[in-house]
This record gives sequence, C-alpha cells and structure tokens, in this order.
Amino acid sequence: MATQNDRTKFLLGEHDIPKAWYNILADLPGPLPPVLHPVTLKPVGPEDLAPLFPMGLIMQEVSPERYIEIPEPVREMYKLYRPSPLIRARRLEQLLDTPARIYYKYEGVSPAGSHKLNTAIAQAFFNKQEGVKKLATETGAGQWGSALSMAGAFLGIEVEVFMVKVSYQQKPYRRMLMEAYGGTVHPSPSPLTAAGRSILEHDPDSPGSLGIAISEAVEDAATHDDTNYSLGSVLNHVMLHQTVIGLECKAAFRKLGLAPDVLIGCAGGGSNFAGLAFPFVPDKLDGQKMRIIAVEPEACPSLTRGWYDYDHGDVAGMTPKLKMYTLGHTFIPPAIHAGGLRYHGMAPLVSKLVNLGVIEAMALPQTACFEGAMLFAQTEGVICAPESSHAVRAAINIARECKQTGEAKTILFNLSGHGHLDMSAYQAYMGGQLTDVVCELPTRP
Amino acid sequence: MATQNDRTKFLLGEHDIPKAWYNILADLPGPLPPVLHPVTLKPVGPEDLAPLFPMGLIMQEVSPERYIEIPEPVREMYKLYRPSPLIRARRLEQLLDTPARIYYKYEGVSPAGSHKLNTAIAQAFFNKQEGVKKLATETGAGQWGSALSMAGAFLGIEVEVFMVKVSYQQKPYRRMLMEAYGGTVHPSPSPLTAAGRSILEHDPDSPGSLGIAISEAVEDAATHDDTNYSLGSVLNHVMLHQTVIGLECKAAFRKLGLAPDVLIGCAGGGSNFAGLAFPFVPDKLDGQKMRIIAVEPEACPSLTRGWYDYDHGDVAGMTPKLKMYTLGHTFIPPAIHAGGLRYHGMAPLVSKLVNLGVIEAMALPQTACFEGAMLFAQTEGVICAPESSHAVRAAINIARECKQTGEAKTILFNLSGHGHLDMSAYQAYMGGQLTDVVCELPTRP
Repeated sequence: MATQNDRTKFLLGEHDIPKAWYNILADLPGPLPPVLHPVTLKPVGPEDLAPLFPMGLIMQEVSPERYIEIPEPVREMYKLYRPSPLIRARRLEQLLDTPARIYYKYEGVSPAGSHKLNTAIAQAFFNKQEGVKKLATETGAGQWGSALSMAGAFLGIEVEVFMVKVSYQQKPYRRMLMEAYGGTVHPSPSPLTAAGRSILEHDPDSPGSLGIAISEAVEDAATHDDTNYSLGSVLNHVMLHQTVIGLECKAAFRKLGLAPDVLIGCAGGGSNFAGLAFPFVPDKLDGQKMRIIAVEPEACPSLTRGWYDYDHGDVAGMTPKLKMYTLGHTFIPPAIHAGGLRYHGMAPLVSKLVNLGVIEAMALPQTACFEGAMLFAQTEGVICAPESSHAVRAAINIARECKQTGEAKTILFNLSGHGHLDMSAYQAYMGGQLTDVVCELPTRP
Repeated sequence: MATQNDRTKFLLGEHDIPKAWYNILADLPGPLPPVLHPVTLKPVGPEDLAPLFPMGLIMQEVSPERYIEIPEPVREMYKLYRPSPLIRARRLEQLLDTPARIYYKYEGVSPAGSHKLNTAIAQAFFNKQEGVKKLATETGAGQWGSALSMAGAFLGIEVEVFMVKVSYQQKPYRRMLMEAYGGTVHPSPSPLTAAGRSILEHDPDSPGSLGIAISEAVEDAATHDDTNYSLGSVLNHVMLHQTVIGLECKAAFRKLGLAPDVLIGCAGGGSNFAGLAFPFVPDKLDGQKMRIIAVEPEACPSLTRGWYDYDHGDVAGMTPKLKMYTLGHTFIPPAIHAGGLRYHGMAPLVSKLVNLGVIEAMALPQTACFEGAMLFAQTEGVICAPESSHAVRAAINIARECKQTGEAKTILFNLSGHGHLDMSAYQAYMGGQLTDVVCELPTRP
C-alpha cells in the first residue's frame, strides 16, 4: 500500500520553490583561496571579470551572504518545471533486494532536459538586466548549451555555443535541440578563434574538450563588446544557482521526517553535485552523520587522481587560475559518452570541501555506469543521461553494500538529466561496443 | 504577478489520479455499430477476440458501465508520472497577443515520453493477470512501442514490436529506446510474417504503414499460443484507458472555476484525442457550448476526406471490420514525420461522434505544424512530438482567430508527447527540407 513515505513526487508545491539561493561561502570552514589573474598571478577583483560577466553575477561570485534572493522573474521561469520531483525508487529497491531506501531528485523534467536550466535562466536574466546582447559559451554533451539556448530564447539574448567536437559528432540531436531553441552551434576546436586554430594546427583530429571549448568561448566574448561569456559549471555563482536542488530536497525530507545518510551526485565541473549537496553541508559540519559522494568517470578522475593546486580553467590558459583538483589544463580526456564529465578540473568550492574531507570522491568506469542505467530504465522507466548514470551506479553500489550489512540507509542521488538524446550511447552499450577507455593519466608537474 | 489561474501545474495531487476510467459507451447517443467478423461479416462475440486479447480487456471493449475501476497496481504505476501537469502557455499567449487563454495537458512527462503509457500499463496488467507471456504489437513513430516495452519490463512480459519501416529508418533513437526497455523491434513490412512477405513481394521498397504493421503483429499473435496482440489506439478499451487525461483536466478546471471553450487533440487512431475529449462529451451533449476538434495531417485525412463505413483495421484484412472513417485499408499514407498519425482509419468511437457532429475535424499540413512547434519551443520550452505539433498549431490558429474577434476563449489542448527523439524532423524543417507531401487520395470504392 502506498504511504506518504513511498510517494514523494508531490510533497512540494510551487510555494516551496526556494525564495533564495544558498551560498556556501558563508559556511565554509576557512576562506576559499583567491582566484589569480592568469598573467600577473595576483588575486583578481570584480573589475578584472567585468569584460566577461555582468556585475550582478560577479557580486554573487564573491558574496559573503548566506542567502541570496532569487529575483521574481527567475522564480517565475523556475515554475515551468520546479519543484522537480523527488521520487522513491521502490522498484529498483525491490530488484536489488536491499534494506536501503533510494530516493532520486529528477532534474530531467526541465524543458531543456537537465539541471543546467537552473543557472541558465539566472545567468541570462542578470546579463539581460545589464543590456548584454549575446552570450558565448561552451558545451560538452550539450546539456548546458541547450539550457542556455532556451534561456536565451526566453529572455531575447543571442546564444553562441562551442560544442566539444566529439559530442557534436556523437550527439547530433543535441545540436539540433540547441538550434530549435535558436542557438548557433560550432564544433570545437573551431577555426573561428585563435585558441581553436592553435589546437587544430597541432592536432587536426582533436576530439576537443571542455577546456578547449571554454578557451574559444572566452576568446569570443573577450573580443566582442556586445558579447559576454557564460559558464555552465565550476564558478561559485553557478554552484549557488544550483542549490535550489538541494534546498527543495531538504524541504521534502523535512516533510518526510527523514534525513539522508548518503548523498550522491556525478561530478564533471561540479554543479549538479554541489546543487544537491551544498545545502546539506552545514548539517554535516554540525555533526550530522552523512556521506557526501562526488562520482567522476575513471577516464577523467580529477578528484581521485588529480592534485589540489592552482590551474587554469581552460586549455589555452586564458582564464584566471583557480585553486582546484585538476589533471592539468592541457589534459584532453578520452572520448567517453558522458561528455559533461570530461573536464580536467573541478569547482573550487567542491575541491575545497573534498580537500577538507567533508566530501568524498569515487571514480567509476563507463560500462558499469551504463549497466546501472539499464537496470534503472527497466525498473524506474527513466532513461538517464550518461553523466547521471554515474550517480545511479554509485547509488546501486551502496544499496548493495546495505544488503550485505543489513543497514537501512537512506540514499539520495541527483538524476541530473534525461538521456533521450544519448540513445546512441545506450545502443553502443547494448551492442557490446562500449569499452572502458584506458588512458595514461598525467602526473603532477 | 502569478495567480492560481496562471499556475496550474500543481493543482492536483496523487489523490486526484482517477480511480475509474470513463466509458463513453454509456453516454453515446445511439448504439455503436457492431464489429463484424472479417470473413463471416457477422457481429463478433468475445470468444472471437479471445485468441488475441485477454478476457479482462475484451469485457472492457463491450462494457455498458459508465465507470470502470482502475486496478490498484495500475494506479500505483500511474503514480510514476500522473497527474500529468496542466500548464497555461502564458508566454505563447503573450507572443500571439491573443485574449485567449491557452492551456495544455503535458503527457510527455511519462517516462516513455507520451500518453501511450496510460494504456500500455493497463494492457500489460490485464494480460499478465491471465498468464500471457508475450505481446506482439505495431508502432508508427515508436511512441506506442516504447510505452509497451516499458510496461512489459515492469510486468515481466516480453514485447515484440513491428515498427513502420520509414519510422524505423527516420527514428533510430526510438528503436534504441524500445531496446533499452528490453523490447525486440522489427522494421515492417518484415519477412517474418506472411502479411509482410506479401507486401514486400509487390513493393520491396514499401515505407510500411500502421495498417501493415498491425497485420504483422496480429498474425504473430494469432499463430503463437503464448502471444497476445496489443493495440495502441483505435479500440474502445484503449480510448477508455486514455480518459485519465480528460478526467484530470476536468478536475483541474473545476478547481480553477473555468470550463474550456475549445478542446483540441491530434488524431491518428484517435486515442490521445479521445482521452482528452471524451470526459467532456457528456457536458456538450447536455448543452454546454464547446468546440471539440480532432486534428489530422493533410497527408492522411481520414476524418476530413475519408468515408464512414465498415473497413478492416489493417492492410491484410485480418482484423474484424469496424465502422469508422477510413481512406480504405489498402491506402499507404506518404512518409510524413508524424508517423503516429499515418493510419488509414479512425477509432469507431471518435468516428461515431464526428458523424453525429459532436466532434469536428480539421486537417493541417506538416510544415505549418512544425512552424507552430518551433514557436512553442521558443516560448514554452517544450519540444513537442511531430504528432502533437498538429494540436499545437490548431491551438495557435484558434488563438489568432480570438485576436481578430476579441473573444477571450479558453483553449485546452493535449500535448501528447515530447519530440526529443524526433529532432531529425526539426532539423529537416529548420534546413528547409520539409515539404508538404502532396498525394493522391483514394476515393470511396
């Protein structure tokens, strides 16, 4: 029989959409290392970032305030898809025969298909407020590019997307989606920028990477007066906007009278993970027992195999240097299907919390993740994105551990997006053509 | 400012999922003409249908009861995605500068991506109850095949899908989705059945049609003891299961204190249209002023250019004869992108109500529909299926008429499914490669 505990999808109403984002900078144990200018290596100030970002976002990047109000027009647009459902994966639990309770927050219901819309709407709004006409950005698998293209269509801002070439080739439907929203898409590296041309000169067949695409988009914005740059992850203000995910989960769990024992999110640049996890971090710092796990691909393991140091956010070294876990900004990850996780670095805020031991990290190979995704599709019906499959698999692993130990843990993971436009990856898995890419990882310079 | 009137997504909770389906047979003005045996031409009885369908569904097909209880396990599975959202298309209204209120019921939130899951779950359940091991079915665009594959995975029934060849080729992602849910998919016409082989003999390049695919699936079921047949539209019990759509809309509109003036659904076999419209039909019969519009493609206009007479449901003439609007069971519609609307006939229940003048019909060309779909994507964010784009475009047309007349009509349309797996059709439209297929329509024999 269904109890409220089983059925949580409608625990929240539109009034429960958060009125403010949660800013973890206010609760971080110790200060976040400053961002350094790429040339002078001195801490950057707001004026250094002004050619790329509107002041509204720059102020959020460095704000010490614990809560930052969500502007009403942004909240109105959130209402198109928020609160997103929180669902108990009953059928998966039964299949695994586990005493664990598995909940997932399903961000794939956003019209653009993932959590990325949470920050895309906010970024487009603050840029629009300051009169920006155009946004240049990068995209890996295309989730971020489609979200920003949609937000641009809503707010009347042009969007130009540099899409990592391997994803551009693997995922034509994602490109078409961006175009249907009115965005312009270039495969990256492209001949349109100096950064792109320089890569193509050395390696005409470069599969591209998020780091390269960022260089191209930053260059585009820096060299055009009417164009700003927009980043889909890594930066503090992006993590900030994503906290609506975790804040809604907290509100729902409060109604359930439950607290999660394990929080899980996949991590490329860190934004969907941070969005789920950050609002719970103060509870953990206050002594609540809780595992918080960032799951990355074995093929691009910045948290588990990288080092914590200053590095550029992009390949060409155009961005400021950030203190973060990194595999080195020249590392080009192999062409796994989870394109959104192919990033050499990690959000400084996530990195700091991993370094402090508040957050733990885990790396998984892609075949195991797809195996988990298939299990999930056949029990819960949802086809998840290859990125999200990392969280699915980690949740399954922990639920299986619970079966061994008999612990009835409450697991909450973020299902960051659907995989409807990633069916070719599923096809490759089902056809036995998917392998676990083995690559030589860089060592600390 | 948002009022309850603007924001209807959460008007209903899980308790509002209907407890019974609405059976329009109880309220039909006059009896529905009987179904005739394909050979004897005598009315068929339950025993004639038993080789294909479980008795639970056969009884629903002919039941005179106004309400038929939804079994609790079916309702539990509905809770994965129901109640589906009812959304006011505010941004579209603003763009059209219309006094009309436009609401859409969004069935694309089901994990399989369309309204088809409403009947797939029910059909799989009643077959499972009677020990059926396998279901054979047809699919056009793939929405029905994915829904039944998912329902099969949930209930432990094998699913074999004959997919119209042109869709199989145009929409590889749909096939992969069915396979990810564990279904087996064959392009139709196939060499696996006598019906398929006979078509291939005459036309090896046949694009296929729903009528051919139905022949193949029926033959498969009729020639295998452990296999039943499952149909995604046309039959009374399918219309019945889909009424959860309209029943939820009625409940929501009651809470809004509104009544729709215009109801719109696209119509291929008629099921999503009937699901929305049927629960409102008694109100119209009771004198409430209301237009109820079925929208079909100009390339396959059974309601607007066909004739109301007995015909087979399939190309090979294996199914019983149904009294319906038809273009003749041998008509192969041109290869438009809305594969789910490529059917020569129309549900007998929908046909009867059109014949009585309770429901009106309208035919639209596909380019106009895609133009409407693009407008919808850029204002409301949702990428709709090519089938649903017919309803979107009709709603836009009527909202524009309201601008001319100044009438503040309340329009409600069914957005039957998302188009994430139909991006190649959008691409064709954006690239100017989509044309309005002109074909010679058959004349009444």
